[in-house]
Amino acid sequence: MSKLLIVGTVAFDAVETPFGKTNKILGGSASYIALSASQFNTTSAIVSVVGGDFPEDHLNLFSKKGVDISSIEIIKEGKTFFWSGRYHNNMNSRDTLVTELNVLENFKPIVSNKFKDADILVLGNLHPIVQLSVLDQMNSSSTFVILDTMNFWMDNALGDLMDVIKRVDVITINDEEARQLTGEHSLVSAAKKIHSMGPEYVVIKKGEHGALLFNNDNMFSAPALPLESVFDPTGAGDTFAGGFAGFLSESQKINFESMKNAVIYGSTLASFCVEKFGTERLKSLKSDEIGRRLIAFKKLTQFEIK
Amino acid sequence: MSKLLIVGTVAFDAVETPFGKTNKILGGSASYIALSASQFNTTSAIVSVVGGDFPEDHLNLFSKKGVDISSIEIIKEGKTFFWSGRYHNNMNSRDTLVTELNVLENFKPIVSNKFKDADILVLGNLHPIVQLSVLDQMNSSSTFVILDTMNFWMDNALGDLMDVIKRVDVITINDEEARQLTGEHSLVSAAKKIHSMGPEYVVIKKGEHGALLFNNDNMFSAPALPLESVFDPTGAGDTFAGGFAGFLSESQKINFESMKNAVIYGSTLASFCVEKFGTERLKSLKSDEIGRRLIAFKKLTQFEIK
Repeated sequence: MSKLLIVGTVAFDAVETPFGKTNKILGGSASYIALSASQFNTTSAIVSVVGGDFPEDHLNLFSKKGVDISSIEIIKEGKTFFWSGRYHNNMNSRDTLVTELNVLENFKPIVSNKFKDADILVLGNLHPIVQLSVLDQMNSSSTFVILDTMNFWMDNALGDLMDVIKRVDVITINDEEARQLTGEHSLVSAAKKIHSMGPEYVVIKKGEHGALLFNNDNMFSAPALPLESVFDPTGAGDTFAGGFAGFLSESQKINFESMKNAVIYGSTLASFCVEKFGTERLKSLKSDEIGRRLIAFKKLTQFEIK
Repeated sequence: MSKLLIVGTVAFDAVETPFGKTNKILGGSASYIALSASQFNTTSAIVSVVGGDFPEDHLNLFSKKGVDISSIEIIKEGKTFFWSGRYHNNMNSRDTLVTELNVLENFKPIVSNKFKDADILVLGNLHPIVQLSVLDQMNSSSTFVILDTMNFWMDNALGDLMDVIKRVDVITINDEEARQLTGEHSLVSAAKKIHSMGPEYVVIKKGEHGALLFNNDNMFSAPALPLESVFDPTGAGDTFAGGFAGFLSESQKINFESMKNAVIYGSTLASFCVEKFGTERLKSLKSDEIGRRLIAFKKLTQFEIK
């Protein structure tokens, strides 16, 4: 079975949407990526850090889903990373209310020997210096690297981020972030510039408008499933990345055709994520539900030229 | 051959984009709709009005493309409708600099006997009262009616607009306009509300993000072709409506499958429109260019579930 290594945050989130409010629930980029990828036939592990306040139940959840948690460091005297945010009415914008880095502040990731030759490495949203440290620990030149990042690192650690971007095969990034990173308004032009920074594949996430996949002159457009209501968008991008990586890990094929499917699987998983608070929907998700939604995606987009 | 009647403005536009500036060029909703629809095998006519200042060359262009211009009234002592606008850098917003209604102010459309039983009627963007007057002159209950409108009429003539909406089979409308018309943020919910106002088919245009087609529980999503540069977005929505109507008129089939193709043809035609100023690109457009771009659209969206 193909090995999938996931680096990112395992955290507490507190979320407020027009539909309600949560206490501290399971959050973090690695949590969403791992739960999403766990829908696929793969051997996965998380590299992350939590505090002594992190419930065993959450860790057990990962284990039950088949995710190796031996590289989630537990700092007993520390507190888990905490993020809190409030979404506005249209769900397209949010305010960050609290960011407490806690144990994340001095996080030195350690990749276990078993995963140093992972087939796929997902660098989830996290400080680029942590992402670089993980890249440096890998010992196989054939590891396929997928990077997810956000505008915060462009604003605050652009040099380090560019060092990471240089070394990855795929980048997944929002449309506005792609524009910020390249100074190009056209996403076609932005993708070209990002190609020249390193990544062979560029995935531009457009939220409710879907995602675009670029590989030089090849383009693929996947819609988001039009939904009557979005309950909580938190983690949708990470869930996309997890589905994307999970599919590639299971299929063990790296080419434009498999990448198209990876985008569709990522979009499908993300469409479930937003239906409930936090990771709730991903926890209960069954494979036949995914199968039905894939068919809905196909029906939504396929046509014959007449 | 199927008869297609187009009601809308035939006008002068002066456009300013980051790429340049035009003098008074051919514009108006009916102009774009007719030039776009003229790519299809159909018998079409425009109902509109111009002033004595309108060049015969523009009228000859329609004739050369096979569009019947006998119902374009020429008011010798009047001036042609004139609109001028300036686009901002990202092309997503524009300022209207000048709107001179001129001959449009007292326009009483007259539908010729030959087109009173048109198979398809396109109500292009125009005052809803003019659209109603045309609807009242039609004498066949089987005429399939496509409405294009804009937020200006929601702000200024909502009652009349609702009377039109009640009587049409398809509405094509922007995402923001669909939200304004219904008070619903979700486009799925907005389409449901618009269905209940009358139209059996709802097409929501999302600019660079493509278009959504709704027919009760059936949904179809078409992307816009990702472009490196948009030269002038003027008339893209009208061109979409023209391609949509032209395809339906040629295919003579009204069902969800043909409507999906109509959306793809509409998007294809619109992707050409924005490549040059005004109607310039539509004037020179060849059917083999359309064929190649349809294949690009298919390549952009089609996938097999693996």
